[in-house]
Amino acid sequence: MIVAMQSGATEHEIQSVIERMVDLGFNVHRTTGTQQTILAGVGTPAHFEVAEFQVLSGVQEAHRISSPYKLAGRGFRPEGTTVKFKNGFVVGGNTVAIMAGPCSVESREQILQSAKIVKAAGGQFLRGGAFKPRSSPYSFQGMGLEGLKLLREVADETGLLVITEVMEISQIELMLPFIDCFQVGARNMQNFNLLRELGHARMPVLMKRGIAATLEEVLLSAEYILAGGNYDLMLCERGIRTFETYTRNTMDISAIPLLKKLTHLPVIADPSHGVGRRDLVPAMALASVAAGADGVIMEMHPNPDKAMSDGAQSLFPDQLTQLVGKMRLIAEAVGRKIE
Amino acid sequence: MIVAMQSGATEHEIQSVIERMVDLGFNVHRTTGTQQTILAGVGTPAHFEVAEFQVLSGVQEAHRISSPYKLAGRGFRPEGTTVKFKNGFVVGGNTVAIMAGPCSVESREQILQSAKIVKAAGGQFLRGGAFKPRSSPYSFQGMGLEGLKLLREVADETGLLVITEVMEISQIELMLPFIDCFQVGARNMQNFNLLRELGHARMPVLMKRGIAATLEEVLLSAEYILAGGNYDLMLCERGIRTFETYTRNTMDISAIPLLKKLTHLPVIADPSHGVGRRDLVPAMALASVAAGADGVIMEMHPNPDKAMSDGAQSLFPDQLTQLVGKMRLIAEAVGRKIE
Amino acid sequence: MIVAMQSGATEHEIQSVIERMVDLGFNVHRTTGTQQTILAGVGTPAHFEVAEFQVLSGVQEAHRISSPYKLAGRGFRPEGTTVKFKNGFVVGGNTVAIMAGPCSVESREQILQSAKIVKAAGGQFLRGGAFKPRSSPYSFQGMGLEGLKLLREVADETGLLVITEVMEISQIELMLPFIDCFQVGARNMQNFNLLRELGHARMPVLMKRGIAATLEEVLLSAEYILAGGNYDLMLCERGIRTFETYTRNTMDISAIPLLKKLTHLPVIADPSHGVGRRDLVPAMALASVAAGADGVIMEMHPNPDKAMSDGAQSLFPDQLTQLVGKMRLIAEAVGRKIE
Amino acid sequence: MIVAMQSGATEHEIQSVIERMVDLGFNVHRTTGTQQTILAGVGTPAHFEVAEFQVLSGVQEAHRISSPYKLAGRGFRPEGTTVKFKNGFVVGGNTVAIMAGPCSVESREQILQSAKIVKAAGGQFLRGGAFKPRSSPYSFQGMGLEGLKLLREVADETGLLVITEVMEISQIELMLPFIDCFQVGARNMQNFNLLRELGHARMPVLMKRGIAATLEEVLLSAEYILAGGNYDLMLCERGIRTFETYTRNTMDISAIPLLKKLTHLPVIADPSHGVGRRDLVPAMALASVAAGADGVIMEMHPNPDKAMSDGAQSLFPDQLTQLVGKMRLIAEAVGRKIE
Repeated sequence: MIVAMQSGATEHEIQSVIERMVDLGFNVHRTTGTQQTILAGVGTPAHFEVAEFQVLSGVQEAHRISSPYKLAGRGFRPEGTTVKFKNGFVVGGNTVAIMAGPCSVESREQILQSAKIVKAAGGQFLRGGAFKPRSSPYSFQGMGLEGLKLLREVADETGLLVITEVMEISQIELMLPFIDCFQVGARNMQNFNLLRELGHARMPVLMKRGIAATLEEVLLSAEYILAGGNYDLMLCERGIRTFETYTRNTMDISAIPLLKKLTHLPVIADPSHGVGRRDLVPAMALASVAAGADGVIMEMHPNPDKAMSDGAQSLFPDQLTQLVGKMRLIAEAVGRKIE
Repeated sequence: MIVAMQSGATEHEIQSVIERMVDLGFNVHRTTGTQQTILAGVGTPAHFEVAEFQVLSGVQEAHRISSPYKLAGRGFRPEGTTVKFKNGFVVGGNTVAIMAGPCSVESREQILQSAKIVKAAGGQFLRGGAFKPRSSPYSFQGMGLEGLKLLREVADETGLLVITEVMEISQIELMLPFIDCFQVGARNMQNFNLLRELGHARMPVLMKRGIAATLEEVLLSAEYILAGGNYDLMLCERGIRTFETYTRNTMDISAIPLLKKLTHLPVIADPSHGVGRRDLVPAMALASVAAGADGVIMEMHPNPDKAMSDGAQSLFPDQLTQLVGKMRLIAEAVGRKIE
Repeated sequence: MIVAMQSGATEHEIQSVIERMVDLGFNVHRTTGTQQTILAGVGTPAHFEVAEFQVLSGVQEAHRISSPYKLAGRGFRPEGTTVKFKNGFVVGGNTVAIMAGPCSVESREQILQSAKIVKAAGGQFLRGGAFKPRSSPYSFQGMGLEGLKLLREVADETGLLVITEVMEISQIELMLPFIDCFQVGARNMQNFNLLRELGHARMPVLMKRGIAATLEEVLLSAEYILAGGNYDLMLCERGIRTFETYTRNTMDISAIPLLKKLTHLPVIADPSHGVGRRDLVPAMALASVAAGADGVIMEMHPNPDKAMSDGAQSLFPDQLTQLVGKMRLIAEAVGRKIE
Repeated sequence: MIVAMQSGATEHEIQSVIERMVDLGFNVHRTTGTQQTILAGVGTPAHFEVAEFQVLSGVQEAHRISSPYKLAGRGFRPEGTTVKFKNGFVVGGNTVAIMAGPCSVESREQILQSAKIVKAAGGQFLRGGAFKPRSSPYSFQGMGLEGLKLLREVADETGLLVITEVMEISQIELMLPFIDCFQVGARNMQNFNLLRELGHARMPVLMKRGIAATLEEVLLSAEYILAGGNYDLMLCERGIRTFETYTRNTMDISAIPLLKKLTHLPVIADPSHGVGRRDLVPAMALASVAAGADGVIMEMHPNPDKAMSDGAQSLFPDQLTQLVGKMRLIAEAVGRKIE
C-alpha cells in the first residue's frame, strides 16, 4: 500500500498513519519530499481496507498495491489453465469451444432438437436452463429436476456435454449426476456462499461476470472458488450495464484480452446476453473469437419465436450453423481452431 | 404494448406482428399513417418480452406499456404503506426513522456500546451484520449465530429494534427469534428465491437497491416479496455504480422522491454505503431527509479506526449524535419529525 | 508518482523505469521488498502521463500522486473563494444564491414575466439562454443577440443579475456588455480553448460539470480558467449519465460536499438538468441546500406547457415561490440563509 | 408519439393531452381499453419534446416513435454511403481502411518516419494532431499550422491521405489546403456550431462518438453535418465511459454492427482510444474488423516511449506491421479485404 500525505500534514498525523500500517502488519518505508511525505507499506496483511486510510487525518491519497487475489492471478500459473472434461474435450487450449442451446429447457422435443442442431453445427456443449432466475415473479421459472434429466438424456444421445446454471447451494448435490459443468449466473457472481461451496465441488464451473462487476471483482470472486480447491474454472464476459439502451448490455470485448493477461483461467464470451438482440449476436461472436476468447456460449432455439424466455436473443438454427462456419475462419486467422 | 412498424414494412410483415400479438392475448388496434403503421396492443398477457418484437421483421420499435408490477405500484395503495414494529414504532408515517450501528458485530462490548450510542442519539434501530458477504475470501466473515444473540440482548437492554442482513434462505428460520427486521443486501436484490421466501415470512423486510439496478428492477424485486403476502416492506437507496471514483458509489438521491411517486412503500436512505466515506456521510444524510426519506440507516462504530470492516465509512459516536441533531432540524423544515 | 513492479521484475526492467522517471524530472526512492520493488517518484514534472508507466515492461501498477491542478485545489485558498457581483451580492459566503428563469429567452413578455417571478420569489439571478445548443438541428436555436438585450433590460428593470450560456469564443466579446456571469454548459466543459479565453475575461463564470466528467476532470477544467487569472469561478453539479432512465440524468448530490473539500470554489446545484423532470426538482433543490450548495439554479417558465424548450423540467411560477420558501428553512437548518 | 394514460386518468386529462398533441401538429388516434387509454400521435412535428408529455397530468408514459433524424437513417440510403477520396480510395466499400500515425505531430523527422511506417504496413491514411485538446492546461498543446504543413508534406512524399482533428470553426478554412479529412473529436461531438459549419465544407469528415454519447445522439449529431449538404461522413466508435477502470474507456464493439443497421454511413473503429493501452490494441483492432468495421484508426509512434502525448496507447512500428497482417486475414474471413 502507498499513502501520500497532504503537503501540510503534521508529524503527528504522519506518525499515526505509520502506526496504523505497522499494526496491520506492513513494513513501512518513508520518503520525505520537499512537498509531501510518501509512505510505502510493504507486505501482505490478511485484512485491511485501503479506504480506511483515505479518511485518516492528513492523508491525501491511499492506493493498494499487492493484489488481494493470489490464486487467480496470472503469475500463479503463467502457462494458463486448461479445463479437461470427462469426454476428453479441453477448454483453454488451442481449440475454441462452442456452447449453445436454448435459454430454458421447455420439453423433450425442444431440447432434443436443440442438441441435434448444436452437434451438427460443430458444438461441444449443450446449454439450457432448468432453474430460471427471472426478474418478474410472473414469468416462466423453469422445469427444474425434470429439465436436468432431459438435458442429460439428449446430451448423451447426441454426444454433447451439459452446462447449466446453479442458483442455490441446495441445488449443487441435486445437479451433480446430470451435468458436466456448473454455470454461475451474473446475478450470483457475488453470492459468496455459493461460490465457496462450488470450490468444494469436483465439477468444472463457468462463472459469469456480474452486470456491474469490475474485472478486479471478477477475479476476487474466482478466488473464492479456487480457494476451495476447484481449479476447473472458466470466466465469462456477458455484457455490462452502461448508459446505452439500444442493446440490453454493452459487451466488453476488451475484457477478453485483459482477463487473459490478468489471470490464467480460460475466458468464454456470451454474445447473446452481451447484446440481447439476435441480429447483433453473429458480429459479436466473431469479434469475441478475434479478440482471443477460449470459447463462445450462445442461445439458439429451434423456434425462437415460440421460446418461453429470451427468444429475442436466440439464434435460429440456420444462423448458428452459418455462424460457426465463419467463426472457424476467424479462429484460423488468429492461429486457433474450432472442432 | 406499442409496436411501430418501419416506414416501408409490408402488409405481410404487419399481419405477422398482429398475429403474434393476438397469440399472446392482446387486443390490437391498428393506426395506418402516411409514413408508418402503429399497432397498439391492449391487455395484460402474463408472459411476453418486448424484445421479442424488436427483432421481428419490419418492426422499427416496440415499447411495453402496462407495467409488470401490480402490487408494488403506487396505485395499489395510494395512501402509502406504513410498517409497524412490535414496539409500536411506525416507518412510513410522519416520523423519520434512525437506524445505526456497526458494519459487523464484533464483540459484546462493541455492540453494547454501539447500542447505547444509537439510543442516546435518538435512534430506534440497531443495525449490525452477523453474516457478512465479503468480496475477498480472506476478509472477516462475521460472528454468525453468536452475533445474532448479542444483537438481541443489547437491543433489549437499550430499547432498540434489531435490523440485520439475511443472505441465505437457510438463515431465515435461524434469524427470526432474534431480529425485528430482515435486511436484503444490494447483492441479493435479484436473488429471487430468497425474496420469494421472505414473502412468506411474518417479519418486516428492508430491501436494498442493487448496485446496478434500475428503479424498475427494484420494483420488480419488491413484487416478489409482496406477492408472497408480506407487505411490511421498505426499500433502500444505497448508491449505484457509475464512472466516478472519488466515492465508492454514487448515491442517487433522486431515487427517494421518485420511488415515493412510483410505489407506496417507505423509502430508507443509506448514506454510508451510498458514498463509502465517513466525511461525506453527514451531508448525504441531511440531503436524504430533505429529499423525503422515511428513514436513514448509517454505520457508526464506537472506534471506527479499529473496526473489522467498513471502518472508513463508519461515523464516530460524536458525529452521529451531532448529525441526528441536524437531521431533526431538516425533518422539521420539510414538515416531519425525528423522535 | 508510485510505480509497483511485478514480483518477478528483473533488475534491468527496474532500472529502465527508474531512468524514465529521472528523465521526466522525478527524484526516485526505491523500496526493495521480499515480494516486490516499489518506486516512489517525488517532484512535479510538468508533462507526464501515468499510463505511460502502466505499459512499461515489468510494471504491475502505476499511480499518480501529486494532483495536476494547482490553483483549483482547496490548499490554494483554504478559506474558500467568494465571488462578488457588481451589485454587491456575494456567492460563496453564508448566503445561498437563487438563480432562476426559463431555458430560452422567447420574447420580451416571457422574459419580463419570468424576471418578476424570480425577483418576487427571492432570487438574485435571472437565467435564460440566448444561444441554445440543441441535440437536433431541427429544434429551436435561440434568439441570439436580441435575447441578450432583452435579458439585460428586464434584469435592470427588476434588479436581478444576468447569467447566460456562452458557447463560442466569438460570443465572449458580444456578450460582455449584457451579462453579469458567463455560464459554460456541460458540453463545453472540455472545450479548452473556450475555457482559456474565459480565463482572460473580467467577468464571473459558472462552469457546469460535463455529463460524464469525473470531479478530477472538473477541477482540471477549472484550472484552465484560473490559470488565465480569472478567479471569479463557480462550479455546478447538473447530473451525470448513468444506466438509470427514469430521470434524464442522475444528479450526484455527493459532488457538492466533495467539491467543497477538494476545491475552494463555490458550488452551485442545478436540479432542473440534474433530473430533467419538474416533479422531482423541488426535492432535489432541498437536498442540494441540505448538502451544502452555495446556490441553486433552476428552470422556471411563466407557462411551462408552452415553453419552446425544456418545458418538462421547468417549474411553474407558484412552484418556484413555494420551493424557495422551503429552501430558506433548510438553509437555516444548516446555518445559512437565503435572502 | 405514443402516450399511455394512467388507468384512473380523467376524461379531462385525456382531452388536455389530445389538445396538446393536436397543437403540435399530430393526428391523434385514441384507443380506449378497459384498463387504460392509449393515444397514438401520427405525423412529424418539427419541434416537440417527449419529456413534456411525461409530466402532464394523468400521463403514465410517453414514447417518441418517429426518429428525429431523417438523413442519417439507414432508410435514406439503403445501399450505404461510400466516401471517395481525391486519390480514388473509397471508404465504405469492400476494402477496410487503415489509418495510423502518432497522437501529435512533434517534428518533421518524427512525422516522416511515421508516414513511411504506415505506408509500408499497408495503410492509406496518416493521422496526427496539429491542434491538441488536452485535459490539463500544463500539457503539450500541439504544433498548430506548422504541424499541418508537415503532415501534408510527408503524406505527399509517401502517398498517404491526411486526417487530423479540427477543434474550432476558425480552424476550418486554415486546415482545408493541407488535409484530406477532418476529424471531429469525441469532446466536440455535440459542438453543434462546429458540426453545422462542417456540413458546409467540401471535405470528408470522420466524427467520433462522444465519451458518454448514446448511438441516437451520434446520429443526431451526424444529422447536423448531413443537413448542411456534406454526405462524405464517417462515424467512429472510440470507447465510452463506464465503471471499469482497468481500461481508459470501454470500447463498445457492438456499436459497429448496430450503426451499420441504423445508418448508411461508414463506421470506423478506434481501438487506441477505445482501450487506451497499447497491449490491448491488437486484440481490439482484430475484433473491430471481425465485427464489420469499414476502417480502423490507430495510434503508432516511431518511438512511443518518447512520445509527447498518448505514448501508452501508441503501437510500436513493428506491432503495427504485424497487426495489419493479421487484420488482413480477419478481413478475408468476413469477406472483405485490406489493401
